[in-house]
Amino acid sequence: MALKVVVIGGGSSYTPEIIEGLIKRHSSFPVTEIVLVDIEAGKEKLQIIGELSKRMIEKSGKSINLSWTLDRRKALQGADFVSTQIRVGGLEARAKDERIPLSHGFIGQETNGAGGIFKAFRTIPVLMELAADIHQICPDAWMINFTNPAGIITEALLKHSQHDKVIGVCNIPYNMRHSTAEILHVAPEEVDIQFVGMNHFVFGRRVFVSGIDRTQEVLEKLKQGLDYSPANIVNLGWSSTFIDALGLLPNPYHQYYYQTEEVLKKDIKAFEENGTRAEKVQELERSLFKLYTNPDLHDKPKELEERGGAFYSDVACSLMDSIYNNKKDIQTVNTRNNGAIPDLPNDAVIEVNSVITKNGPKPLVVGPLPSSIKGMVTHMKAFEEQVIQAGISGSYNDAYIAMLMNPLMQDEKGSKLVLDELLEAHKAFLPQFN
Amino acid sequence: MALKVVVIGGGSSYTPEIIEGLIKRHSSFPVTEIVLVDIEAGKEKLQIIGELSKRMIEKSGKSINLSWTLDRRKALQGADFVSTQIRVGGLEARAKDERIPLSHGFIGQETNGAGGIFKAFRTIPVLMELAADIHQICPDAWMINFTNPAGIITEALLKHSQHDKVIGVCNIPYNMRHSTAEILHVAPEEVDIQFVGMNHFVFGRRVFVSGIDRTQEVLEKLKQGLDYSPANIVNLGWSSTFIDALGLLPNPYHQYYYQTEEVLKKDIKAFEENGTRAEKVQELERSLFKLYTNPDLHDKPKELEERGGAFYSDVACSLMDSIYNNKKDIQTVNTRNNGAIPDLPNDAVIEVNSVITKNGPKPLVVGPLPSSIKGMVTHMKAFEEQVIQAGISGSYNDAYIAMLMNPLMQDEKGSKLVLDELLEAHKAFLPQFN
Amino acid sequence: MALKVVVIGGGSSYTPEIIEGLIKRHSSFPVTEIVLVDIEAGKEKLQIIGELSKRMIEKSGKSINLSWTLDRRKALQGADFVSTQIRVGGLEARAKDERIPLSHGFIGQETNGAGGIFKAFRTIPVLMELAADIHQICPDAWMINFTNPAGIITEALLKHSQHDKVIGVCNIPYNMRHSTAEILHVAPEEVDIQFVGMNHFVFGRRVFVSGIDRTQEVLEKLKQGLDYSPANIVNLGWSSTFIDALGLLPNPYHQYYYQTEEVLKKDIKAFEENGTRAEKVQELERSLFKLYTNPDLHDKPKELEERGGAFYSDVACSLMDSIYNNKKDIQTVNTRNNGAIPDLPNDAVIEVNSVITKNGPKPLVVGPLPSSIKGMVTHMKAFEEQVIQAGISGSYNDAYIAMLMNPLMQDEKGSKLVLDELLEAHKAFLPQFN
Amino acid sequence: MALKVVVIGGGSSYTPEIIEGLIKRHSSFPVTEIVLVDIEAGKEKLQIIGELSKRMIEKSGKSINLSWTLDRRKALQGADFVSTQIRVGGLEARAKDERIPLSHGFIGQETNGAGGIFKAFRTIPVLMELAADIHQICPDAWMINFTNPAGIITEALLKHSQHDKVIGVCNIPYNMRHSTAEILHVAPEEVDIQFVGMNHFVFGRRVFVSGIDRTQEVLEKLKQGLDYSPANIVNLGWSSTFIDALGLLPNPYHQYYYQTEEVLKKDIKAFEENGTRAEKVQELERSLFKLYTNPDLHDKPKELEERGGAFYSDVACSLMDSIYNNKKDIQTVNTRNNGAIPDLPNDAVIEVNSVITKNGPKPLVVGPLPSSIKGMVTHMKAFEEQVIQAGISGSYNDAYIAMLMNPLMQDEKGSKLVLDELLEAHKAFLPQFN
Repeated sequence: MALKVVVIGGGSSYTPEIIEGLIKRHSSFPVTEIVLVDIEAGKEKLQIIGELSKRMIEKSGKSINLSWTLDRRKALQGADFVSTQIRVGGLEARAKDERIPLSHGFIGQETNGAGGIFKAFRTIPVLMELAADIHQICPDAWMINFTNPAGIITEALLKHSQHDKVIGVCNIPYNMRHSTAEILHVAPEEVDIQFVGMNHFVFGRRVFVSGIDRTQEVLEKLKQGLDYSPANIVNLGWSSTFIDALGLLPNPYHQYYYQTEEVLKKDIKAFEENGTRAEKVQELERSLFKLYTNPDLHDKPKELEERGGAFYSDVACSLMDSIYNNKKDIQTVNTRNNGAIPDLPNDAVIEVNSVITKNGPKPLVVGPLPSSIKGMVTHMKAFEEQVIQAGISGSYNDAYIAMLMNPLMQDEKGSKLVLDELLEAHKAFLPQFN
Repeated sequence: MALKVVVIGGGSSYTPEIIEGLIKRHSSFPVTEIVLVDIEAGKEKLQIIGELSKRMIEKSGKSINLSWTLDRRKALQGADFVSTQIRVGGLEARAKDERIPLSHGFIGQETNGAGGIFKAFRTIPVLMELAADIHQICPDAWMINFTNPAGIITEALLKHSQHDKVIGVCNIPYNMRHSTAEILHVAPEEVDIQFVGMNHFVFGRRVFVSGIDRTQEVLEKLKQGLDYSPANIVNLGWSSTFIDALGLLPNPYHQYYYQTEEVLKKDIKAFEENGTRAEKVQELERSLFKLYTNPDLHDKPKELEERGGAFYSDVACSLMDSIYNNKKDIQTVNTRNNGAIPDLPNDAVIEVNSVITKNGPKPLVVGPLPSSIKGMVTHMKAFEEQVIQAGISGSYNDAYIAMLMNPLMQDEKGSKLVLDELLEAHKAFLPQFN
Repeated sequence: MALKVVVIGGGSSYTPEIIEGLIKRHSSFPVTEIVLVDIEAGKEKLQIIGELSKRMIEKSGKSINLSWTLDRRKALQGADFVSTQIRVGGLEARAKDERIPLSHGFIGQETNGAGGIFKAFRTIPVLMELAADIHQICPDAWMINFTNPAGIITEALLKHSQHDKVIGVCNIPYNMRHSTAEILHVAPEEVDIQFVGMNHFVFGRRVFVSGIDRTQEVLEKLKQGLDYSPANIVNLGWSSTFIDALGLLPNPYHQYYYQTEEVLKKDIKAFEENGTRAEKVQELERSLFKLYTNPDLHDKPKELEERGGAFYSDVACSLMDSIYNNKKDIQTVNTRNNGAIPDLPNDAVIEVNSVITKNGPKPLVVGPLPSSIKGMVTHMKAFEEQVIQAGISGSYNDAYIAMLMNPLMQDEKGSKLVLDELLEAHKAFLPQFN
Repeated sequence: MALKVVVIGGGSSYTPEIIEGLIKRHSSFPVTEIVLVDIEAGKEKLQIIGELSKRMIEKSGKSINLSWTLDRRKALQGADFVSTQIRVGGLEARAKDERIPLSHGFIGQETNGAGGIFKAFRTIPVLMELAADIHQICPDAWMINFTNPAGIITEALLKHSQHDKVIGVCNIPYNMRHSTAEILHVAPEEVDIQFVGMNHFVFGRRVFVSGIDRTQEVLEKLKQGLDYSPANIVNLGWSSTFIDALGLLPNPYHQYYYQTEEVLKKDIKAFEENGTRAEKVQELERSLFKLYTNPDLHDKPKELEERGGAFYSDVACSLMDSIYNNKKDIQTVNTRNNGAIPDLPNDAVIEVNSVITKNGPKPLVVGPLPSSIKGMVTHMKAFEEQVIQAGISGSYNDAYIAMLMNPLMQDEKGSKLVLDELLEAHKAFLPQFN
């Protein structure tokens, strides 16, 4: 029986990870066909990745048919799963997302800060079009979105596209579970974290190991400086006061909101010394592709794991496997709230532990937000809703309000400066604003 | 390691089923001690059941320590699970619950009709006391309530007792799953039904077999007269119009609400011919206990399965097993809503698919009520809340409003007549109203 | 300055009341033009009413330009207020609404029972068209709807038409206020009743006279048989138990829901003796029109006040006056909930005390529903939503569910019988179902 | 008939305003007795104010019995209205509220910033005690609270005291209405503003003059720099972009949240030059009291109007007048939400247009929050709830979370620094934290 996976943004440097993941799971998730898709501008990279993937599959001995193409609609025919890992405007765009806010004294956070707003604005039109294609060509296919801001993008698609089988994934819950397992010296499979919140703004409420509550132990470790940040975030550590009062596990992105001044200083210093994170990533990318072209390379190189996005693909492969096999295990995904957190709108997308079935994720009830984070979480969700509205409407006023609503901006004049420069800088990728 | 189960109402004719269930699961759920508890009035039955249970355990060869006692508080020491299957006032009380309303032209439905109101009124004080004992003596024990009206009782305990580890179970979802499996010729484990609603008022929204949606097939069978009623309910069948318009699987109790006149006529006729269901059950009981006293009987007799409550204990044993082993399988239990159905209060108890963990059931999100049942379900839940309020307060006005709110009563004068007679008839068991 | 009122259904026997109301208020609400509009079938009646109205205006000496026409779109030009008092299918249709359910043993309640469902089904298409015309021709005009079921119709228009300036009115709150004033021997203007609920299902929560709470006194009077029913409803009286437990003022329509059996018996008996209420009204109408043709009649005849709809027009005239003059007095109207009763959907129409401004009614917060009526009110509102959905969609299944959801029906087979006969009987007026 | 007003904090420099207000309204609101109450530390000021008040009343010729006392419980006997205008810790405490945060680079906003948190912490215990006294001694009396943070204090009392007749007032809505009237050249009574939000975080959604919508005109004026700030806030003006995108009237306090950096710079500069606002107010106070001692002064001196709190008393007198006379006019007060803004909790206090009756304020429905402010308003309300929780519990962790949740703080380490210093500085006034 055919089982086809299409990788949109197949020329991404992350693709070897997904190929590895599919090979590794072949016995339970017997993929028969993989198609890597990219756009004209990524043709060369697609070729490199395609050839490396081919070598990886050959080495594995699995019977998987791999190909690559620029013809997206053709690739979608008969697809069962479509994963999306695109970067509209490339790393150049990301560099602007970070540099422009920073030049006005704001953190250019690329996922839920000013930068993230524009990443969303650039991505929404492209993925809306993809979703429309999927809905027409392979309506039963699941769209697995890893494109950031993953929560916002997933919510935009679930609200505004006709295709309903869309799931967002992120590696933050994966990393939190794995780091927690590590510090407790247990296997990751034994660890359950009750998550509450949304993408990049998720907290851990309780930690269970084989059903035993070990939350306090983990909170103690956090106070001692436990670090479960991805490679792209320098951890500043949390004070005992913060952890005691909060009683929750923060995620690495929370430092942007609770340690704003320090992060800003660090970012400005780092920028003055080395340019933005985006620029560092560009460099890293170049060296990765250099590795990839080596015809003797038949594996995903270790170096890839140093990227912030590591394990994203592993998360995605696990998800596809569980859907395909109706596994009913619990994974943390981005999907519709529907009351799981009664304080947030039913149609909001949240990051939530869900039972994974052939019919998609079935979220577990989270319950009311703890009072300590209710303000921030509802604020952030309202901000996300505004970003989506602006990303769809292309209205200047909507975009200004989105910028103003972001807790890292929240400045009448600064919001306009940053907005106007970013609109100008990304003009080519913002059809809805023209 | 000790693993102790206490059975409150151990002298019930259903107890052999729970003993069988515990024996059957001994390899995964290694019970070391079972104590059957009953009250003075049930002493004789307790003795009979105790001896039969002893013979069953002996035959099984499992090393389980079984005893029986009238000293509840002593029995609770060290308990891990406490199951409750009591009938305050016995079958005589049930007969009155049914006969009195019927004599005024109303269905005396014993779970969520006028009879059920009084079953709740009689049970609430007793189980509130039990919950207080558990909270004091074995605070970590899970209380598994099968006492009807199971949803109302569980909600009363979760709202008003201090003990929070209370789960309600019912055999209706079990029966619906098993009957569905039967008509689709598949194993029950392959069948998932998305339930929506509450105890004895639960609907099936979609049916999946190994993840494939087969709802339409089941609805077709229902139109052709598929019967998955328990032994105590005569199925009247559903019309095609009803099933097509509703698009949901009703449960056998729905006939009371949607076929009221017919059920009433049937009940009156049956009553005139044979007395109430309660009276039939009394007869059945007598013959069961006759069987039980046979010293050569070492098994649960087949005859027990003809009772409406069959499989209740199986449901309860499965639940204890999954809690004990942190199994994370999905079972349908009565637990706090917390937003699973956003139309109902957070603190309402609903019957809901839940992941069963060592920390109890974690409900899956159900989502908003389908518009076709929103009116009835919210009405019934408001009624249940009123029953609980009256059952705790003992206020005549509260009780009158509860009676009036019941869709089978809803009659200014009739509600008073029925209420007054039932209050008088059950006086001895209603301390809160005196 | 021009001030134009258009009366849709101008040939109605109620029209003299609205003419009288406009004459009476001419000093504060200086109407310059009234146009009576009707359809071809009502041409003759329109002529009679038009001439009587002319005589009434002449006698008053006010300078009001009155005309009548069958050309609705022309009449709407320049309108400031459009009142609607239509009866699609006439009294013959109402007779069927009542007779058909009764023949199957159900109350054919013409506003929120089975009859009311069909009154809504017949009216919705006609008033949707009218609202579209108003929106196009006189978009600033207020549409004042007295057509029953007034709450359902108003909600249908506010949800599905583009015209947003729609207000529903009913004489029940007016009657309750006036009757209360009478029994307390105070002026109606001194009486404030806190209403809670919706059209024909509204309760009085508290009664204030000049700000002093006199609720208990009124409840006592109700227990003694105080009757504030309109002419078309025979009051059965309420028991002390009911009033004490409820603690609210019921409205006359509540007897259908809380005294169902008695009303049914009374209706069947009355029907066997005299035909339906509709048939009595037809007779009354004939005699009214006979009076109206008398060229010496220059006033609204006293006989009109014996109709159930008396004072509707007074309510409507008061409303127009307060809007026109931005009076900011408090009137009870049917308008969007928007949170006034948090238990009901924001977009539901409720009957609510509102400050009347030039920009329409601004509802006062009502707060959560008392627990004693929460079940019934949420049930009825869900039923109303279903009626509207079916009235717009024309789907058989939607209509069946609406019929089934009605607490006076709620019968699987009976609902189908009644539905099918009514669909057939009213075929000519139900374009959406063809 | 006796009509008694008790002024808690009677030694306040604002008291002459309330005396003037009561004299002015004597024909409709015939006060017979006024008692000024203060504490030992304010004895001298109380004497000065008492004597001035006496002279004012004498000059007016009204027959009002005025006295002053330190015995609060005695003063409360027979009271009809109790107004509260206290400043626990005096202006010295306020100076610390502002100076300490500023020293760490945060705005020490005295109402809903870090300073306001501590103003609430100091005030809550005192007013909880007062409310308990009122509830016991004069349970029918209305407590009119002008003590800032007025919204938070009112919510704390409505949630945690037994006395339910508490209303909060503020002069911001009054000022907005009056300034708007001024720029539109109309009388303030003709202006209606639809307010949405809560105390010091309220927006104007629409402006009506005699029922005509003139919102756009007012927004245009705002873009041109219209200033309706009270004396204590320097207006920075709003950009066209901000006003166009928001489409709402901000209040002067919004600059703290949307122009944070600028306000901070201004505050630091002002502080370095002149000390805090509190210190300026102390100076102003000294000169006012100098004026007050003049035995020839028989009127409220003009100089008082230069204070930020001007017109507070006028607002309070209007409110008492309308309650006393069951006027049913519309005033903007702080009272329970109850669904008026469905996005906020039912028991939250909001600032809302309300019909003023003998039974207190009846809020008008506001409806869902505009999406542009939903994030901020829900965030601020969650913050306020946390301040109240901490103010009642006296828990350090609760207080830390409150500080962290404030959008002007929101800094892990800074929150601790500021919290610790303020806790130390105000120790004497924070019994709940000891």
